[in-house]
Amino acid sequence: MKLTPRVAKILSWYESDNPGTKANLARILNAGRLGGTGRMVILPVDQGFEHGPARSFAPNPAAYDPHYHFELAIEAGLNAYAAPLGSLEAGAATFAGCIPTILKVNSSNSLATTKDQAVTGSVSDALRLGCSAIGFTIYPGSEYAFDLMEELRDMAEDAKAAGLAVVVWSYPRGPNLDKVAETALDIAAYAAHMAALLGAHIIKVKPPTEAISLDAAKKTYASHPVEVGDAAKRIAHIVQACFNGRRLVVFSGGESRGADSLLDDVRAIHAGGGNGSIVGRNAFQRSKPDALKLLSDIIDVYLSEV
Amino acid sequence: MKLTPRVAKILSWYESDNPGTKANLARILNAGRLGGTGRMVILPVDQGFEHGPARSFAPNPAAYDPHYHFELAIEAGLNAYAAPLGSLEAGAATFAGCIPTILKVNSSNSLATTKDQAVTGSVSDALRLGCSAIGFTIYPGSEYAFDLMEELRDMAEDAKAAGLAVVVWSYPRGPNLDKVAETALDIAAYAAHMAALLGAHIIKVKPPTEAISLDAAKKTYASHPVEVGDAAKRIAHIVQACFNGRRLVVFSGGESRGADSLLDDVRAIHAGGGNGSIVGRNAFQRSKPDALKLLSDIIDVYLSEV
Amino acid sequence: MKLTPRVAKILSWYESDNPGTKANLARILNAGRLGGTGRMVILPVDQGFEHGPARSFAPNPAAYDPHYHFELAIEAGLNAYAAPLGSLEAGAATFAGCIPTILKVNSSNSLATTKDQAVTGSVSDALRLGCSAIGFTIYPGSEYAFDLMEELRDMAEDAKAAGLAVVVWSYPRGPNLDKVAETALDIAAYAAHMAALLGAHIIKVKPPTEAISLDAAKKTYASHPVEVGDAAKRIAHIVQACFNGRRLVVFSGGESRGADSLLDDVRAIHAGGGNGSIVGRNAFQRSKPDALKLLSDIIDVYLSEV
Amino acid sequence: MKLTPRVAKILSWYESDNPGTKANLARILNAGRLGGTGRMVILPVDQGFEHGPARSFAPNPAAYDPHYHFELAIEAGLNAYAAPLGSLEAGAATFAGCIPTILKVNSSNSLATTKDQAVTGSVSDALRLGCSAIGFTIYPGSEYAFDLMEELRDMAEDAKAAGLAVVVWSYPRGPNLDKVAETALDIAAYAAHMAALLGAHIIKVKPPTEAISLDAAKKTYASHPVEVGDAAKRIAHIVQACFNGRRLVVFSGGESRGADSLLDDVRAIHAGGGNGSIVGRNAFQRSKPDALKLLSDIIDVYLSEV
Amino acid sequence: MKLTPRVAKILSWYESDNPGTKANLARILNAGRLGGTGRMVILPVDQGFEHGPARSFAPNPAAYDPHYHFELAIEAGLNAYAAPLGSLEAGAATFAGCIPTILKVNSSNSLATTKDQAVTGSVSDALRLGCSAIGFTIYPGSEYAFDLMEELRDMAEDAKAAGLAVVVWSYPRGPNLDKVAETALDIAAYAAHMAALLGAHIIKVKPPTEAISLDAAKKTYASHPVEVGDAAKRIAHIVQACFNGRRLVVFSGGESRGADSLLDDVRAIHAGGGNGSIVGRNAFQRSKPDALKLLSDIIDVYLSEV
Repeated sequence: MKLTPRVAKILSWYESDNPGTKANLARILNAGRLGGTGRMVILPVDQGFEHGPARSFAPNPAAYDPHYHFELAIEAGLNAYAAPLGSLEAGAATFAGCIPTILKVNSSNSLATTKDQAVTGSVSDALRLGCSAIGFTIYPGSEYAFDLMEELRDMAEDAKAAGLAVVVWSYPRGPNLDKVAETALDIAAYAAHMAALLGAHIIKVKPPTEAISLDAAKKTYASHPVEVGDAAKRIAHIVQACFNGRRLVVFSGGESRGADSLLDDVRAIHAGGGNGSIVGRNAFQRSKPDALKLLSDIIDVYLSEV
Repeated sequence: MKLTPRVAKILSWYESDNPGTKANLARILNAGRLGGTGRMVILPVDQGFEHGPARSFAPNPAAYDPHYHFELAIEAGLNAYAAPLGSLEAGAATFAGCIPTILKVNSSNSLATTKDQAVTGSVSDALRLGCSAIGFTIYPGSEYAFDLMEELRDMAEDAKAAGLAVVVWSYPRGPNLDKVAETALDIAAYAAHMAALLGAHIIKVKPPTEAISLDAAKKTYASHPVEVGDAAKRIAHIVQACFNGRRLVVFSGGESRGADSLLDDVRAIHAGGGNGSIVGRNAFQRSKPDALKLLSDIIDVYLSEV
Repeated sequence: MKLTPRVAKILSWYESDNPGTKANLARILNAGRLGGTGRMVILPVDQGFEHGPARSFAPNPAAYDPHYHFELAIEAGLNAYAAPLGSLEAGAATFAGCIPTILKVNSSNSLATTKDQAVTGSVSDALRLGCSAIGFTIYPGSEYAFDLMEELRDMAEDAKAAGLAVVVWSYPRGPNLDKVAETALDIAAYAAHMAALLGAHIIKVKPPTEAISLDAAKKTYASHPVEVGDAAKRIAHIVQACFNGRRLVVFSGGESRGADSLLDDVRAIHAGGGNGSIVGRNAFQRSKPDALKLLSDIIDVYLSEV
Repeated sequence: MKLTPRVAKILSWYESDNPGTKANLARILNAGRLGGTGRMVILPVDQGFEHGPARSFAPNPAAYDPHYHFELAIEAGLNAYAAPLGSLEAGAATFAGCIPTILKVNSSNSLATTKDQAVTGSVSDALRLGCSAIGFTIYPGSEYAFDLMEELRDMAEDAKAAGLAVVVWSYPRGPNLDKVAETALDIAAYAAHMAALLGAHIIKVKPPTEAISLDAAKKTYASHPVEVGDAAKRIAHIVQACFNGRRLVVFSGGESRGADSLLDDVRAIHAGGGNGSIVGRNAFQRSKPDALKLLSDIIDVYLSEV
Repeated sequence: MKLTPRVAKILSWYESDNPGTKANLARILNAGRLGGTGRMVILPVDQGFEHGPARSFAPNPAAYDPHYHFELAIEAGLNAYAAPLGSLEAGAATFAGCIPTILKVNSSNSLATTKDQAVTGSVSDALRLGCSAIGFTIYPGSEYAFDLMEELRDMAEDAKAAGLAVVVWSYPRGPNLDKVAETALDIAAYAAHMAALLGAHIIKVKPPTEAISLDAAKKTYASHPVEVGDAAKRIAHIVQACFNGRRLVVFSGGESRGADSLLDDVRAIHAGGGNGSIVGRNAFQRSKPDALKLLSDIIDVYLSEV
């Protein structure tokens, strides 16, 4: 197999990484229907942890079985499947070599009393399960943000030494951030930038809204305006915050909703130069045929000319 | 000895585990009168820690002696005996090889000021005492839930590497959970699911009630209803939350009470596809003949046709 | 030297321990005038830490010198001498091989602001000083109880691996325990039982009073009464809580007081099946001749027929 | 290459360091237009972490690309470039050997809820990225000051053993320090002195103001006055606090502002015997030609006769 | 070189220490004009950390240079020089072998918000810098006292294993101790005793006042009175608390003041059997000739007949 020029270019941005990590990034970038394009669609299934099993899987009970998600991701031709320890343990051997996997190594839950996460997997776990990457969530703005960053630093160092890639979910929340702030453009760009500074290979954020939230940032955005009304321009600003495009950034799909609304987002990501989508509930809460249709439509957008 | 098809099937679900762990799971599944059926009855004796010695053993003073519990579990033909460090140290050599043992590695007590547990045993202890598994309690919903999960993760990784199985007691409690919530169906399913995601091989929860407690979950259960009035359907929902049955789940017996009430529970567990019972006070607080009779009746339920 | 049948029997209860730990238990049980009887009198001198030097030693200034306590314990024919790091460092070479020593590895003090203890010695210290055991205090009921238990677990694992014995001082105290509760019969039995569950070889508690303190326990003691008015029966209940006698339990002497009152306690311990006394201030705050007389009287009680 | 007498003299002050650390100090002192003079100008780019990407880079969007800063520092003939992990990872290979780099191993951010920093890089990271030094921020006066100092101690020991230099950003802040106090002369001297005591090779502080803030220090400054109205005398006092000049001390440029104001500061640093400037926003927020001009002017000051 | 009988006797008290530690104690006891007498005068310079550079060194600006203190201690014929990491790093090579050094491994400062200390040096640092001992401060009575004691325990174990001596600064302070209590006779004796119990080789306390502060201790001091009006008797009581003289104890000089007042203290220390003085500000805040005169006078007292 030969790398496409686009993938070769992307790998060149990760100039400090060892060949093991580059190979795992290449595995993710070369998998599925988007293989070689530099775009990705990833299936993440940690909602059982975050929201509980019934809220996650009752709409499509087949999804209670961890094998279902491996199959969905493979059949849809996705780039990778991300899940917590138990889920990967339950399918990693059956589907070994069929699709790159990302071990989500920390998780929160709806019963939690703090805006923190528990570390629930390790780099060793990722290695024994044949994963290509670890996935880690940070909450910039939380009282636990520094602890989360330090845990990430620690695990990322080990992951990189072991030739794994590091995917960072960067979700702003905390006592000084209201609901608007959590997805405001300036905050989202900041969150993405911090993930890049922390050494992430792939960054996951939510699509930003038009809001500018941090008082200290308003003057800057006033003198150096972003066309916040244009979703693609907002995406482009996030890409800029990811080392001007030197780090891969993907956007989450959010709550279950109509395919049209979701595809609008995807078109903006595509137009703005984002590297893809990470679509969970919108995929596995639909019936398998519907999910395959939607994922195919998303992939088609990323395959289209910008 | 040859594995029964049922046990072979169950072991196939633990596809990421090493042969050592599979062998220990097989030892538990093959022990006692239920050996080979995929059902289990386990004797847990950590109530001395949780409630104190007199509240636990005064009703049947022979039970003050740790040897008594080994003998009871062996004579009753159970699958395993679970206890804290000191109890196993006091009998592990005398009864070496007679019954699989589970070292309960964390414990709380009635004098405690927080909803936490102390780690009181280690994987090394489990190995030197010849145990087949470690047992660990998490309190989802507690202020200490993330700490408990991280301790579990740490010990589970070591246990799996050493060829031991991991049994997780998942007991919801915490500042946002009232008494009803602690055993509500949605919360119990969530607790069981988190244990599965955390990599448990065997999950222990309390039998769920009809309540649906978490506001965020009520809509889901309204659109995708479980027949909450049918105890077997509630059990089946818990089984579903345990990776659609890919993880073994057993149910506790609760406080001492009449045999009929307990056997009703057991019939529901059996009918709902649960993997068995873990019966402490209802066993060791009865006289030995009464306990053997009750345990025999429970086993008979699990040996009956569903 | 041959073990007496009694000591051989006691060692058989510690069935999971390695020969090193058994040998050290034997050293303690075979030392002094009570050697071979299964009864013990131990001299503990950590009151300098707990109460300060003057309150401890001014009544008998010779006791300011650490050598004094070694000499007292040896001359009195005791089973062991227990003290903190500095005290043992100051005499361990001079008195090497003369009497088994117990390194008290944690300590509190009267200036402390919390119901906790500082770890002030290690298993390595115990080994280099030629000790037979480590001694560790837990405060069941304290906000620090879980931390103390986890420290104990950690050190006890190392101590057992190194062939040392583990002595646990179990002293209930904490925000929910008043003065009556701290020595109430049910709480004392619970404290002793937890020490046994934590893997202690020798348990030290205060002699219990007639009180039953924990609300949740009152029903049990009402249905299964202990003759609380009989001090020997109270001791027997504590022995029961120590794995029905499978773990050695000794009782502290408490504050300095008249010899008669102390000997009454000792007779009750003897009659109730306790394994001995651990007498500090009542020994070293008397002049040496008086102390030797009192210790001799105590030993005589334990040498008498029950 | 031969060391200049000035650099040889400076290295002689670091008499306890191994040849690896001395070589890395020499690399920094010998780089760029100021090479060999004992003066330094360093480019630090951690403002993306501290203030967010747009506030840092929107005024000069080329600066969103990590390569830009390497190029700027090299073209300007600076002594070193300091940045967090992700930024160095993105350019360390391309610019290997072109300019000494300093890995900033801890960082705060504008969303943080406490006056603390997260450790975001390691000594191992610095080594694999070919850095000459680690950079660490302490906040004397903060509730986290002791934690920060202990983290620094730990990392500095490893850095020195690995032959790296240690640069300490010492920024007073905390509940007892108001805005005036944070840059008051006495506090700045104290902050610089603590960095020296903690074993820093190079100390970074803000240029001090005329204020004397700590009550306990006012009497001293009254009896032993510093000519606080003279900026060069204030610098000289800081130099004095850095072991009377035995430790290198550089001063930050502060917020973006006019070149004249900044150059006034530089002249005072030069006249007062400071070892140079560390100029971030004033450099990278200007267009490249403007930045090169300003940096050249700064260097010219340091090349002039005092 | 042959040990004097006095030093040989003192070393015999440290009977559990290895030859490395005994050699380092001997180096300190044999250095300077008091060499061989069993008395010591030590120069400690950690006031830059505790009070800031100007408050410490402005009265004698030569003292800003770390070399000054080495020279002062050597010229004065002292037994040892104690300082934090940075200060020793700056002179350890120049003055290698000229005077025993003590690395002060923890420090507080006047900007701190808690009654704690930061660990700022390590046993490895002490070894690479050729020190004879580590110095550690504990604050008995502080909310951090247990943490400090546990840090000390940890470092002292390593230090002793590496053949270093351990010097403990024991300074009572905390929420229940007012200014009077901090130097009260009973509290000072208690603080010294705890340092001894923690395994200190050399103990440093402040000279005690006449006050008896702890309520629980007043009865003891009433029945077993110390002649508190006689400073030498107060010193003798502290010596008694240091294992009846089996542990070396030195007394600090306190704030800068007249030579007569300081020499009065020294005479009391000498008469009371204390092992010497540790004089910082009173030495380095005087001009060098004045300091040498004062230190010579102090040494003369210790050389005089008692």
